[in-house]
Amino acid sequence: MTSIKGIAASNGIAIAKAYRMEAPDLSFDKKEIESPEQEVERFQSALATSKNELEKIKDHALKTLGEEKAEIFSAHLLVLSDPELIQPIEDKIKTENVNAEAALNETANMFIDLFKNMDNEYMRERAADIQDVTKRVMAHLLNVTFPDPALIDEEVVIIAEDLTPSDTAQLNKQFVKGFTTDIGGRTSHSAIMARSLEIPAVVGTKEVTATINKDDMVIVDGIAGEVIVHPTDEQIETYKQKQAQYEEKKQEWAKLKDEPTVTADNKHVELVANIGTPDDVDGVINNGGEGVGLYRTEFLYMGKNQLPTEEEQFEAYKAVLEGVGSDKPVVVRTLDIGGDKELDYLDLPDEMNPFLGFRAIRLCLERDDIFRTQLRALLRASVYGNLKIMFPMIATLGEFRQAKAILLEEKEKLQSEGTEVSEAIEVGMMVEIPATAVIAKQFAKEVDFFSIGTNDLIQYTMAADRMNERVSYLYQPYNPAILNLINNVIEAAHAEGKWAGMCGEMAGDEIAIPILLGLGLDEFSMSATSILPARTQILSLSQEEMISYKEEILSMDTAEDVVEFVKSKTGQK
Amino acid sequence: MTSIKGIAASNGIAIAKAYRMEAPDLSFDKKEIESPEQEVERFQSALATSKNELEKIKDHALKTLGEEKAEIFSAHLLVLSDPELIQPIEDKIKTENVNAEAALNETANMFIDLFKNMDNEYMRERAADIQDVTKRVMAHLLNVTFPDPALIDEEVVIIAEDLTPSDTAQLNKQFVKGFTTDIGGRTSHSAIMARSLEIPAVVGTKEVTATINKDDMVIVDGIAGEVIVHPTDEQIETYKQKQAQYEEKKQEWAKLKDEPTVTADNKHVELVANIGTPDDVDGVINNGGEGVGLYRTEFLYMGKNQLPTEEEQFEAYKAVLEGVGSDKPVVVRTLDIGGDKELDYLDLPDEMNPFLGFRAIRLCLERDDIFRTQLRALLRASVYGNLKIMFPMIATLGEFRQAKAILLEEKEKLQSEGTEVSEAIEVGMMVEIPATAVIAKQFAKEVDFFSIGTNDLIQYTMAADRMNERVSYLYQPYNPAILNLINNVIEAAHAEGKWAGMCGEMAGDEIAIPILLGLGLDEFSMSATSILPARTQILSLSQEEMISYKEEILSMDTAEDVVEFVKSKTGQK
Repeated sequence: MTSIKGIAASNGIAIAKAYRMEAPDLSFDKKEIESPEQEVERFQSALATSKNELEKIKDHALKTLGEEKAEIFSAHLLVLSDPELIQPIEDKIKTENVNAEAALNETANMFIDLFKNMDNEYMRERAADIQDVTKRVMAHLLNVTFPDPALIDEEVVIIAEDLTPSDTAQLNKQFVKGFTTDIGGRTSHSAIMARSLEIPAVVGTKEVTATINKDDMVIVDGIAGEVIVHPTDEQIETYKQKQAQYEEKKQEWAKLKDEPTVTADNKHVELVANIGTPDDVDGVINNGGEGVGLYRTEFLYMGKNQLPTEEEQFEAYKAVLEGVGSDKPVVVRTLDIGGDKELDYLDLPDEMNPFLGFRAIRLCLERDDIFRTQLRALLRASVYGNLKIMFPMIATLGEFRQAKAILLEEKEKLQSEGTEVSEAIEVGMMVEIPATAVIAKQFAKEVDFFSIGTNDLIQYTMAADRMNERVSYLYQPYNPAILNLINNVIEAAHAEGKWAGMCGEMAGDEIAIPILLGLGLDEFSMSATSILPARTQILSLSQEEMISYKEEILSMDTAEDVVEFVKSKTGQK
Repeated sequence: MTSIKGIAASNGIAIAKAYRMEAPDLSFDKKEIESPEQEVERFQSALATSKNELEKIKDHALKTLGEEKAEIFSAHLLVLSDPELIQPIEDKIKTENVNAEAALNETANMFIDLFKNMDNEYMRERAADIQDVTKRVMAHLLNVTFPDPALIDEEVVIIAEDLTPSDTAQLNKQFVKGFTTDIGGRTSHSAIMARSLEIPAVVGTKEVTATINKDDMVIVDGIAGEVIVHPTDEQIETYKQKQAQYEEKKQEWAKLKDEPTVTADNKHVELVANIGTPDDVDGVINNGGEGVGLYRTEFLYMGKNQLPTEEEQFEAYKAVLEGVGSDKPVVVRTLDIGGDKELDYLDLPDEMNPFLGFRAIRLCLERDDIFRTQLRALLRASVYGNLKIMFPMIATLGEFRQAKAILLEEKEKLQSEGTEVSEAIEVGMMVEIPATAVIAKQFAKEVDFFSIGTNDLIQYTMAADRMNERVSYLYQPYNPAILNLINNVIEAAHAEGKWAGMCGEMAGDEIAIPILLGLGLDEFSMSATSILPARTQILSLSQEEMISYKEEILSMDTAEDVVEFVKSKTGQK
């Protein structure tokens, strides 16, 4: 047997035969052809078959994954219907008398190279889309099988270099018991999909495709981040027990669905969920979320050709507020676009360092037409629940004041138009820029609450792009500098009688939870599936004990020292 | 008269006639030609003339501006000698029978487009080089005059959209009394050159080329950042007085050249200079610098085809140490490459956010072959002066420990080889990443000193790329968050009996200086030409008074509040 270490991307254990999701051999010879007309027809037929398949995959994705995740296939279908790509291919066949494979390959590569080299994340994604669909068309031209996981009809573990959006959308949970890949991290597309589908997964192993053959017996341990190839019978038995224990745990967790989140010494904290669309609300309820701590409104603006209308937004916000239930809080983050999230139709300038660029509130304050439409939709929806609004990427008190003033202006306008607006809306801000964490005291006087966005706060505080693998060792949630900033924010909030929450990955992390309890964090917002495990953990912890470690932890030298200490105190491995 | 506001880029006042540095009309018709051989000859002749001119400009630059700044013309000459650019042009003339103008234009544009769209600052600079030299060759092909400021023989003020490196290198201080441009900021190339040449300049006016005609009388007020067109006689008189006052001030400053820097209440602080090459040492001495607070060693690595050898580096470090004088401190920063500073020959990966990427100490710890060579050269040079070594972009204590351990290893190796090494070398670090400023207390136990790099510290703390104009309003040195971090660093250093300096732009800023005195900063490192004005300012300030404002300033809400307060207390306008 062989054991391969990787990144635990989605909880659970899978035991099954390996299914290698391999790229088909798409090599071809460039040839002169005799009848360009026939060749164009052959190309059009491959195109039609590909479109047909993509429609099917899209429908499948719509049913199993929801609207947002099916969007990618709409994008792929658009590529295949784009005359700017298709026409040059047909022209090439006709004017150069070359076979369709060569015409497709050369034309697509030209576009891919062009887009890939642009200093623009959106265009680079388009390059990936073209690459993705070109392969499918090429496979049909060459009559080779394009891997189609939707056809799998026995229990397997998928082994792949990486899984594309089309791959993951086709996964059928009934048969696909788990997957493992060579590349990727906890925040890569395939990892997020795995958690959303609740399929155990280990990513970033670097070597599963090189090590595992078709039909090899494989165990994917998505809890420990380990893949075992050719396990012994004994090992299979052990892992079956672990699997059963995990299922049992899930049963235990489920019992806590409607329980409050209290520590062993009876202190209540709020466990809420991060969501992206109204579709996600069911998951919050089913996982016992006490509300929504972060509603990322970007998705309303993405995968479209124009800005969403006030009405569209109003409907979405209302649906979330009503879906969550009127007493439970829903914290909505206003538009956080720019940086790595671009909108085609906004035509934002390319930036050398988009993470340090024109995004979120910076963009909203300049394009206040966009901002006011969103705020009006939110204000109108506010009467349908317990709405809290927060602004992303606030760096200065001036920005917060300006954003809040615009909100109040729109509120007054609506009220003078006779529209009802809740008078109980709390207005807060994300703390994700170091400057705001450093002088949280000054901000605490003017905000109703803070929500600490650790993903960005960590990358700015450490000056390390969290998407950049070469500096990923600096993405350190437990670095004492990060913990000191978090502590500063919480203390500042409490001194003014305000509350402080957290909506980054860190809030659901089992090493971080005891520390955050000790720092006095009031609200933990995380992926819905993390809520019940977190509640279970918190039930067993004493807040008083965690508080007693606070000063010692904050004075530590390194992240490693902190992890070691927490493990020694909580008995975690 | 008209008054135009801009950015004060270089101190002083110029009064003279306008000289419009205009781009020549380089439009041409694409033509079929009869004799490709003759056309190639015509192209080669234009090429030869251009090279000849560039050689002259380069020599001029070498004499007046030093080796480093003349490098750009070596780059331009390289472009004109590059067969990968020249051959395709000649081929195009021969195979397509087109005139040299069209062949040059189409070929150059192809390369420019290709390089410009690359996600790589270095390649984009190459695009600018090609553009620059292509224009010169084109002007010779078309027989139109290419602006040649070296030919100016009467007193003028130059009016331009922007000044290229070739433009500024040709400026003759005897005749060019000042310049003003439409675009650019305080850290743009033309502004840096103006300060280095001590020519008054106002940049970023947006409209000087649209407003000012040839031979218009113009006043450039590089102190206030104002340009006056068609001044009245009275105004000319007033500005002549201001000019005289400024000259007087410079005389006054010069008297302080060998004086210590003490406050009105007799507290000494150290005023030292930022340098880039051994050539800059004269400027430090002439401007009364008490040493070097930042020697940027990158320049040793740039404009080359390979890494500098240990010997080359040793000679440079020794020259600086000896040049500065053995008692005065020289703080050398180890290699800070990556980010916006790339090295062609290192083949670093393209990054989405280079400022948050693989650079400086991160690169040095991975490529420790490069690092060790530099450290050995430094250690060998250490016996020639008062050397202090600091590491850039330290984010964690682990990195500092690792870097210091490598230094000590190399020291031991050298000593065991019988090479003498100073035993008095202090080892410190740049504080430019928020994480290190937040837990400076932990770092202070292990470093010998801190040097606060405000340019980066501000951009990370505010999460705003300082090169990105759309978020430049967030580059706020006086933001209370920045001041609190600086205070934290200084307090942490002093608690451990260590010293804290600053080597960003902020250290020479007249609003910042009183604040920094109040926070207890020990060492101020700035451009050499800022030292005497800073010394003059410090002589008039009471440190006790500034200390008394400290808590009030640190509790302020915004940068604007801080500026207003400092101005009210120091009487600055």
